[in-house]
Amino acid sequence: MPHTFDALIALEESLDSSGQHPAAPVVAGSEQGSGVTGPRTAVARTHPAWANMVGPYGGATAAQALAAVTSDPRAQGRPAALTLNFAAPVSDGQLSITVDPVRTNRSNQHWTVRVDQESGTVMTGTVLLAGGRETFSDTEAHAPHVPAPAEVDVARYSMNLPWTDNYVFRLVSGVPHRPSDSSETVMWVAQSQPRTWDHLSLAAASDVFFPRIFARTGAPSPAGTVTYTVYFHTGPEALAAQGENLLCRAQASRFHEGLFDQVGHVWGEDGQLLATTTQLVYFKGV
Amino acid sequence: MPHTFDALIALEESLDSSGQHPAAPVVAGSEQGSGVTGPRTAVARTHPAWANMVGPYGGATAAQALAAVTSDPRAQGRPAALTLNFAAPVSDGQLSITVDPVRTNRSNQHWTVRVDQESGTVMTGTVLLAGGRETFSDTEAHAPHVPAPAEVDVARYSMNLPWTDNYVFRLVSGVPHRPSDSSETVMWVAQSQPRTWDHLSLAAASDVFFPRIFARTGAPSPAGTVTYTVYFHTGPEALAAQGENLLCRAQASRFHEGLFDQVGHVWGEDGQLLATTTQLVYFKGV
Repeated sequence: MPHTFDALIALEESLDSSGQHPAAPVVAGSEQGSGVTGPRTAVARTHPAWANMVGPYGGATAAQALAAVTSDPRAQGRPAALTLNFAAPVSDGQLSITVDPVRTNRSNQHWTVRVDQESGTVMTGTVLLAGGRETFSDTEAHAPHVPAPAEVDVARYSMNLPWTDNYVFRLVSGVPHRPSDSSETVMWVAQSQPRTWDHLSLAAASDVFFPRIFARTGAPSPAGTVTYTVYFHTGPEALAAQGENLLCRAQASRFHEGLFDQVGHVWGEDGQLLATTTQLVYFKGV
Repeated sequence: MPHTFDALIALEESLDSSGQHPAAPVVAGSEQGSGVTGPRTAVARTHPAWANMVGPYGGATAAQALAAVTSDPRAQGRPAALTLNFAAPVSDGQLSITVDPVRTNRSNQHWTVRVDQESGTVMTGTVLLAGGRETFSDTEAHAPHVPAPAEVDVARYSMNLPWTDNYVFRLVSGVPHRPSDSSETVMWVAQSQPRTWDHLSLAAASDVFFPRIFARTGAPSPAGTVTYTVYFHTGPEALAAQGENLLCRAQASRFHEGLFDQVGHVWGEDGQLLATTTQLVYFKGV
């Protein structure tokens, strides 16, 4: 059995209209900067292990969209940023992920991403790849001082959400079912089935926070991410060297008119800041 | 003389190949959700009052891109989020801004944005519009306690950057030319020529922070925004009711491998949180 995450990100080449695999990527492109631009479509499928209440976990779809970029033969560099917009509910089944490297520069590469299903476009977004260079390095968002993972009880995150079984959650502060003056949550998150961390699994894991409205009011209310951003602060070697546990902290800045934002940070077990992540989330009245 | 900002955001209808204004928006679209999708192109021009060291101020181009969405007759709702990627340097002159409302839902509308110049695509991005609804409302990112604008000296922000003349900067803490352990800057920002605040001018003003690397190291080094996100927390009436001064706070989470992020908040004079804004910024070694 492959790891549930490897099963999730296994993409197929898009078939052409005669049902055949095209011999080469479909690139109807032109030269811009140093690369060949043009759309290329890969096919992904939702995976039952990554199901949410309705449709798939958003972080799972984000990982599939990013995988369509990083597995494209034109990809240069490592993920530096992604912004994905959840335009409509993703249905269980097939996703057509169309990616286009619209601009390749010396130090970075800009991609657009679109995910289509039978119902139309369900996701839009952009991905930035960049090459790592030695420069001044410093961290200002320090990991909060918290007990080590072994000293924190494992939480049952939520009921009847298959995707949560892929992770082990250890809530340090800010729990979903108790009202609080602050929406801040701090938790350790590990993969249930250990797997070396990479940008794809970090893109999925940066969406593990339950909606901030639950932490603030203590009451679950319908809520869904509308736009999701991750800035990746380091390269593949540094990610692969991390231990299993990620320290995750998130808080809303403002709840207003049916929307709230979330600003989050994800650190490795060694305290290294791996990602800054933000969301804008729709919620139904409380 | 129109206000320099109104001159900036004045867009023209794109001319068709025969040099005529098309009679109607060019919509080669299909129905998705409740709206007509399809690309529509508007033309903007860089404005000398908004020039940066090379090309235009990024916040000015962001405002033009957002204006192409909000002035589209298909627009529904007020700006809730934008993410714009600076794929290549913007040259002085004409910009073709192509926008597409890929999905119109009951409570929000998802747009894609692309800006082209003769050199090719210089910007990609997405805009989210949403309708305001009365819901639970609360702010967790509170304005820092600082002296009132009248008690803070006006700073000359920087030399030889025409766009800075559009704003009056009052630096409370975190100045560009003095090294510091923290990259945090807090400042009051007003428009030099008063103008009622709206989502377009807020989109421009949320980019006023000088690069965090200047505040941290005290040394200017080449730096440029690669991706820029603004979450708008309120509607047009609340923005229009604001005084001239915005309280702006920004800090980097991590500088590493030639990139740093910036997490910022913008409050009105009354302490209301108006925007959460993030950037990923390229910088040259220090």
